[in-house]
Amino acid sequence: MKQLLYGVAYYDEYMPYGRLETDIQMMKDAGINVVRIAESTWSTHEPQNGVFDFTSVNRVLDAMHKAGISVIVGTPTYAVPTWMVKEHPEVLAVTKQGAGKYGARQIMDITSPTYLFYAERIIRKLMENVKDHPAIIGYQIDNETKHYDTSGPNVQLQFVKYLKEKFKTTDALNKAFGLSYWSNDVHAWEDMPSVVGTINGSFGAEFSKFQRTLVDDFLAWQVEIVKEYRHEGQFITQNFDFEWRGYSFGVQPNVNHFTASKPFDITGVDIYHPSQEDLTGIEISFGGDVARSTKQQNYLVLETEAQAFSHWTPFPGQLRLQAFSHVASGANMVAYWHWHSIHNSFETYWKGLLSHDLKPNPVYNEAKTIGADFKRLSPKLVNLKKKNKTAILVSNESLTGVSWFKFNQRSELNYNDILRLIYDELYKLNVECDIIHPETENLEDYSLIIVPCLYVASDQLLDRLNQYVDKGGHAVFTFKSGFTDENIKVRTTNQPGIIEKVCGVQYQMFIEPKRVQLAENPYGVDESKNEVHTWMELLTPTTAETFAKYDHPAWGEYAAITGNECGDGYATYIGCIVSSEVMSGILAQALKRASIWETEQEIRFPIIIKSGVNDEGRKIKFIFNYSADIEMMRYPFEESEELLSEKHYKQGETITLNPWSFMIFEL
Amino acid sequence: MKQLLYGVAYYDEYMPYGRLETDIQMMKDAGINVVRIAESTWSTHEPQNGVFDFTSVNRVLDAMHKAGISVIVGTPTYAVPTWMVKEHPEVLAVTKQGAGKYGARQIMDITSPTYLFYAERIIRKLMENVKDHPAIIGYQIDNETKHYDTSGPNVQLQFVKYLKEKFKTTDALNKAFGLSYWSNDVHAWEDMPSVVGTINGSFGAEFSKFQRTLVDDFLAWQVEIVKEYRHEGQFITQNFDFEWRGYSFGVQPNVNHFTASKPFDITGVDIYHPSQEDLTGIEISFGGDVARSTKQQNYLVLETEAQAFSHWTPFPGQLRLQAFSHVASGANMVAYWHWHSIHNSFETYWKGLLSHDLKPNPVYNEAKTIGADFKRLSPKLVNLKKKNKTAILVSNESLTGVSWFKFNQRSELNYNDILRLIYDELYKLNVECDIIHPETENLEDYSLIIVPCLYVASDQLLDRLNQYVDKGGHAVFTFKSGFTDENIKVRTTNQPGIIEKVCGVQYQMFIEPKRVQLAENPYGVDESKNEVHTWMELLTPTTAETFAKYDHPAWGEYAAITGNECGDGYATYIGCIVSSEVMSGILAQALKRASIWETEQEIRFPIIIKSGVNDEGRKIKFIFNYSADIEMMRYPFEESEELLSEKHYKQGETITLNPWSFMIFEL
Amino acid sequence: MKQLLYGVAYYDEYMPYGRLETDIQMMKDAGINVVRIAESTWSTHEPQNGVFDFTSVNRVLDAMHKAGISVIVGTPTYAVPTWMVKEHPEVLAVTKQGAGKYGARQIMDITSPTYLFYAERIIRKLMENVKDHPAIIGYQIDNETKHYDTSGPNVQLQFVKYLKEKFKTTDALNKAFGLSYWSNDVHAWEDMPSVVGTINGSFGAEFSKFQRTLVDDFLAWQVEIVKEYRHEGQFITQNFDFEWRGYSFGVQPNVNHFTASKPFDITGVDIYHPSQEDLTGIEISFGGDVARSTKQQNYLVLETEAQAFSHWTPFPGQLRLQAFSHVASGANMVAYWHWHSIHNSFETYWKGLLSHDLKPNPVYNEAKTIGADFKRLSPKLVNLKKKNKTAILVSNESLTGVSWFKFNQRSELNYNDILRLIYDELYKLNVECDIIHPETENLEDYSLIIVPCLYVASDQLLDRLNQYVDKGGHAVFTFKSGFTDENIKVRTTNQPGIIEKVCGVQYQMFIEPKRVQLAENPYGVDESKNEVHTWMELLTPTTAETFAKYDHPAWGEYAAITGNECGDGYATYIGCIVSSEVMSGILAQALKRASIWETEQEIRFPIIIKSGVNDEGRKIKFIFNYSADIEMMRYPFEESEELLSEKHYKQGETITLNPWSFMIFEL
Repeated sequence: MKQLLYGVAYYDEYMPYGRLETDIQMMKDAGINVVRIAESTWSTHEPQNGVFDFTSVNRVLDAMHKAGISVIVGTPTYAVPTWMVKEHPEVLAVTKQGAGKYGARQIMDITSPTYLFYAERIIRKLMENVKDHPAIIGYQIDNETKHYDTSGPNVQLQFVKYLKEKFKTTDALNKAFGLSYWSNDVHAWEDMPSVVGTINGSFGAEFSKFQRTLVDDFLAWQVEIVKEYRHEGQFITQNFDFEWRGYSFGVQPNVNHFTASKPFDITGVDIYHPSQEDLTGIEISFGGDVARSTKQQNYLVLETEAQAFSHWTPFPGQLRLQAFSHVASGANMVAYWHWHSIHNSFETYWKGLLSHDLKPNPVYNEAKTIGADFKRLSPKLVNLKKKNKTAILVSNESLTGVSWFKFNQRSELNYNDILRLIYDELYKLNVECDIIHPETENLEDYSLIIVPCLYVASDQLLDRLNQYVDKGGHAVFTFKSGFTDENIKVRTTNQPGIIEKVCGVQYQMFIEPKRVQLAENPYGVDESKNEVHTWMELLTPTTAETFAKYDHPAWGEYAAITGNECGDGYATYIGCIVSSEVMSGILAQALKRASIWETEQEIRFPIIIKSGVNDEGRKIKFIFNYSADIEMMRYPFEESEELLSEKHYKQGETITLNPWSFMIFEL
Repeated sequence: MKQLLYGVAYYDEYMPYGRLETDIQMMKDAGINVVRIAESTWSTHEPQNGVFDFTSVNRVLDAMHKAGISVIVGTPTYAVPTWMVKEHPEVLAVTKQGAGKYGARQIMDITSPTYLFYAERIIRKLMENVKDHPAIIGYQIDNETKHYDTSGPNVQLQFVKYLKEKFKTTDALNKAFGLSYWSNDVHAWEDMPSVVGTINGSFGAEFSKFQRTLVDDFLAWQVEIVKEYRHEGQFITQNFDFEWRGYSFGVQPNVNHFTASKPFDITGVDIYHPSQEDLTGIEISFGGDVARSTKQQNYLVLETEAQAFSHWTPFPGQLRLQAFSHVASGANMVAYWHWHSIHNSFETYWKGLLSHDLKPNPVYNEAKTIGADFKRLSPKLVNLKKKNKTAILVSNESLTGVSWFKFNQRSELNYNDILRLIYDELYKLNVECDIIHPETENLEDYSLIIVPCLYVASDQLLDRLNQYVDKGGHAVFTFKSGFTDENIKVRTTNQPGIIEKVCGVQYQMFIEPKRVQLAENPYGVDESKNEVHTWMELLTPTTAETFAKYDHPAWGEYAAITGNECGDGYATYIGCIVSSEVMSGILAQALKRASIWETEQEIRFPIIIKSGVNDEGRKIKFIFNYSADIEMMRYPFEESEELLSEKHYKQGETITLNPWSFMIFEL
Repeated sequence: MKQLLYGVAYYDEYMPYGRLETDIQMMKDAGINVVRIAESTWSTHEPQNGVFDFTSVNRVLDAMHKAGISVIVGTPTYAVPTWMVKEHPEVLAVTKQGAGKYGARQIMDITSPTYLFYAERIIRKLMENVKDHPAIIGYQIDNETKHYDTSGPNVQLQFVKYLKEKFKTTDALNKAFGLSYWSNDVHAWEDMPSVVGTINGSFGAEFSKFQRTLVDDFLAWQVEIVKEYRHEGQFITQNFDFEWRGYSFGVQPNVNHFTASKPFDITGVDIYHPSQEDLTGIEISFGGDVARSTKQQNYLVLETEAQAFSHWTPFPGQLRLQAFSHVASGANMVAYWHWHSIHNSFETYWKGLLSHDLKPNPVYNEAKTIGADFKRLSPKLVNLKKKNKTAILVSNESLTGVSWFKFNQRSELNYNDILRLIYDELYKLNVECDIIHPETENLEDYSLIIVPCLYVASDQLLDRLNQYVDKGGHAVFTFKSGFTDENIKVRTTNQPGIIEKVCGVQYQMFIEPKRVQLAENPYGVDESKNEVHTWMELLTPTTAETFAKYDHPAWGEYAAITGNECGDGYATYIGCIVSSEVMSGILAQALKRASIWETEQEIRFPIIIKSGVNDEGRKIKFIFNYSADIEMMRYPFEESEELLSEKHYKQGETITLNPWSFMIFEL
């Protein structure tokens, strides 16, 4: 990437009246240098079966090119036209809830040959139309692609073939999944029931894994088509999204980002996050770390919020803070969804940079300052590289596993809650990290690996983690890690399974705590924060030292948190769900023991520090104030220039950060 | 109407044993002078397809006539017999939830020709049977008619024809509704998807509007049939009901009462309301104001509660209070649902005047006093006329619009909550009002018009409201008014759309407030009541004066509530959801500015004053005590006679109101 | 029974690897003398249609026999194999939710001839295979059998025939159920709608009653088949379960335990209950009392919890406490579900005696002490007989009736909540009781009968209760008793119907109380416990004395709780839902008046005393400490030996009970 991209999604097709020239002038004023188009407008480009019309695409491409604004063109396959569903209702995904109904996007069976036929045709027609246009810098494949829980008979049939390929015999399948339970075993492939009604967690979770491969296949198939047309220098990307809780919360359950991103040149993501009083920057950082880690390179933020909804309209300063936070995590592009608010339909209150009046407004005015700074500082900030010493190992399989086997019958907590319990505390400690996964090979590049709830793991993966510790790595495992194999069969060995070896701890029993504290408040937190909840394992150290015991009349002898030297490394084991404050204490201890406790860790949220190395090989330090208060601190790094003010600061000099503001230092 | 009607619904068909003579004697003792029959008993009158039996109707008509009790006969079409559904399952409405199941009432497709065929036949047979009976004073068409969300393929087809008629071309439709969003546009009428799955709010809301016209058509069709038989002097009415929250809460979403009431001679309604400690009279007043306003004349309360359910059994005095409250709002009839409690089935605990033992009881005994007073005071209280200076403009279209585009993602508040926030405070201020609607022509008859959440409005309607103010009217608009046009397309002008002109205020941004107060507590309320919630617009006055700003670090410069002189009138704009107490303050201010602050407004809930002019041209003042306490006050009007006690009171004399009691003064 | 049985469910079929010999040795070590097998493993025994394989059954039978462990063999019919559903999808029950999906157990139509054909074949094949095996002491029929809400067209047709048989004419049916309401009446049997959509409580409840008879029929049919093979001395049992609220809470709505248990030799039940801090022993006692009462003899606890789930893992001592509590209620067998935790599928966290590591653990170790004590004390504790003076009358029909006609529109309370309100207080007062039902004949054997919410009752039943009182019995009736007849038609007489005669009290009105206390706190409880909630009847005594009135401005004159002498007996009537504390006071009063207040009642929960007479005719007294505290008390009985410690105690001597511990005295 040669420069920071500052962009918007732009839908000429949704405009209430023609105003392309006005929009472009306003974009230029705001420093917008890229727009993303077409990813949801199939029906405009193919209003009837086989009738094509790319007028709006061409008009926008020409006008943008004239204005010097680049364009990313999306394949318009994630929202199907009315004529297709009317002619071929079978393109709609059949799910656990039954047959689909036309209306929303993302409702089709991505394995339907009818859908694939039409999708290929519109992609080729579009590509033929645009392929030589000089405005185009890249292509986006589909949008926020997932499997939409497609589960109809055709998908069930594919799944049987997949199982046959994987297990060869029904006996092997029965044994791996324990299907004999409640007479679910299968003794002829023809007897395989639809997975839709299954109560067998192994069977159900395997189907989820299979559904994720459908996304991999679908995306790779589209990439191959687009590659036939794209010119050198044009990238192909996807817009991945995250577990959605009204905002981007955690690992996406319905896509494996690590496998799905393989065919792409660069990973794109959308990141939506709490705002106003609730803005912390955590989701920006988390989503960025995932995106950057998929290909271990810079990434694109293809969508983020401008003033969407009444609860996301940013306070003055926040839009700037957010934009530079993305860059500080390694984003080479920050783009808003979207330029203009939409006047009808569904996402009417998902407002863009422009309100419905399509005039300048305070948020747009703030964007103008971002555009100007991006332009000026682009050489310093583009292609920022990171070399993190800490990694978190995430697992789609464990996420699915924990969704089948919940912490307890009342709790709504899932895998991502535990992941975020850890991630958030690292963030607040100003520890930058990579996100790794079961296939990651370079474990030894990290000084500290944190392993939340690795409920589902092959022997091989656990052996590799053991070796990592044995050779000098530091690891922090939480409860439930190692419990089952890759087929979600609980291990018949001591728990916590194979990692017992490095953790030096065993357990046979686990409890749902009621009013249980950690004995003697080992992390010195408020009493109310010393409580454990939802899940606790009754740990018995073999070789481990005990960091915390339970304060409870019946379970007082058992350990709650332990640490164990093993080979050249060290493994911490957390046997219970703790408060954020206790988690922070545990992580701080682990960081110190791993000798990666640095200057940044002495400073805490709401001051957030992000680091990188730029194209010139210079260190960049961002200091963000994620609060409504003025924050004063001593500048902690070597003498350098603050890039926004172009002032120089010496180590120890007082710096003052206004509410929701930041500084950027080039060391 | 020549006298106050005091009535009950009576179901000879549901009686556990024959006791018609006993019932009639008990009715006579209680002063019951009208019964309503037959509206739910189709299967008794047509036990088999084409076999008719009106024995029970005739028996009741004869016996009532002999006893001097009038009868309202209902067409029995709102509950279909088993044989019909067994023969023709297609008469059941297909809804978003799929095909219907037999059991409840109100489950049929009111457009089904099969249903209409049978409905017409039973109506004609019934009418032929009863038409000359002297006991009958009027007919009720069906009951609590709604569209039951009928949405099957036949209804979808009708809807396409309706759209074709309205928009002529698919292009016009696409543009009006913004269907290109997510590829929903239609380029051949044959491609129209069922609206059932739509995510397009314009499309979905238009279907709701279309469904409401089905109710208009169905009712008008029945009226035409009944008119062929009814004699001069017999009225035709409907029993409308309200948004149901376990009681009659607000504007009915599934019927447009103003259009649906047109073919009727007189509007009937049912009103059910909280009771016991929670009795306020608000629903009696609100439902009455809607009913009276539909045809700007007196109305019938065809159903209200006697001792339904365990939480509605009235405290001593409450049944009287309720009955006279209906009359004070302009009702010419108060009828209970129903005479006797039912011994089986579904509404067994929806108890009537008589408990299941069918004997006198305390509630029945209190009804006897009402019947006696109605009889004695009928000449003074029947046909009570009102001339209100305040009106509230309600809009079914805005109600639907706000249900598609909610205040925010968490809030359950809907249009009626805002309407009631206003209505309830007017009620407590003893301001009587009319309910007007977008088609109301006589706006200038009102000194003050309050416009809650007029989210959906044509240019023409907003222009008329502007003219109203310009010519001297006072208006109070709330947030979201003027935001979209009649197709729920957001206006591309400044907000609040066209009414910016009279309001002298603009906004581009809106927020979901967290702990935001009105700055400087402008209405002098408790601090906890000074908070705004759920929705706030960031207002910038152009010509308006600011009544309140927000107390917030980021939004402190914006106005929350404003007022603007415009032409000869004045417009208040409320930009946020406020507490009841603040709303009361805003409304009091508007009333005073409009010079309609009178004696009544000096007195507050739980003392409620209602006024009218009787057939003799005399002013009637009701003073109600809606509390469990004895209330003492100075009599505020000119010297007059209290009609219940026949005592005379002078202005300023102390009057004492027992708990849940009232006085009636003829001035 | 010759000895106490201590058992586990054992599934060789679910084992992750072969370890039968190891398991048996560990069982022997723990004193396990019986295992239950095969009730859920149809697909292992018939892997394909008509292919049979009883290897696992035979292997386990042989090995157990060799080890001297008895076996109970279950018919494997409650979980159907995949091949059956693939070949014959119609075996799945069609319910209100529509067609079933394969996956869980208990999903079939127990009236399907296809299912019955295969069920009979597998039963006969299994029986032919095992019938002469010396290890077998008994058979279990199916498991936790219920009707699974089977409601498809075939079941509807059977139901119509059932109604025809019962009512002969549609007119009789219409009248009994009040079907004319909302035009639901039927004038030709062919017109009968499916009950699935009905709103008629009488019709709906009759269907539930009919569905319960399907369970009776299905179980009796299986018993007849098994009887053809079983040898003398082998028992046939069922494993009944209870209303499930995450644990065994109350009367099972979907089975009538009293009729369903008739064909069995001995009743078996499963009892799961709160544990850890929430362990009270109430469910053990309640489930035991129901089971013992079905056949008025000892019973089997075929399943109870070992360390299932994180919230049921017992504190040290609790497993022992639980086991002996079962015995103290009259159980001759205590068996865990199950031996080993399961490594896949659905109930993976429903852990057995062994954790997933299949090694000894603290819970298993505690079981060893139980096994040893059971063996030693078996002659003293087996076949314990009780002769209780108190009974509670329960009614499946009233349970269903109250589920149709709830206390009020917001309340989630059901029949079992009221039953448990009473049962729990009796338990805490150390009153042991029998559970009787409408068909119970020996009412006069009891000094006190408590009748909760007998909402549905024939005249004959109420007459019998009247006679019981008249002849000297004491009765306590609650609100709603007597309200409707056996068809859930509300009585047209005074309420509380026929029992007015013995209760000497009437009411016509009932209320949902808000902040209503009992006047003058008649039971001397904490003020907060003196409140009534959810339901109150406004009672007027005719001959009764008033125990409590309501403290309320409107209802202060009405009685809340009354007592009435009638003939030689006495009837208490409770007109409202009271707190546990007030209920305790009412029951204590009734016990004293009935002259059955004894030593045990002077001692209260958490000390629980259970009594019985053993085979030697000696009195046994158990004293349990259901608390985490050490409890000291004076030994209240005559001098005797404590069987665990073999120490002798004199009356008045201090005894000390450790947390969750107990003593057993032989008097």
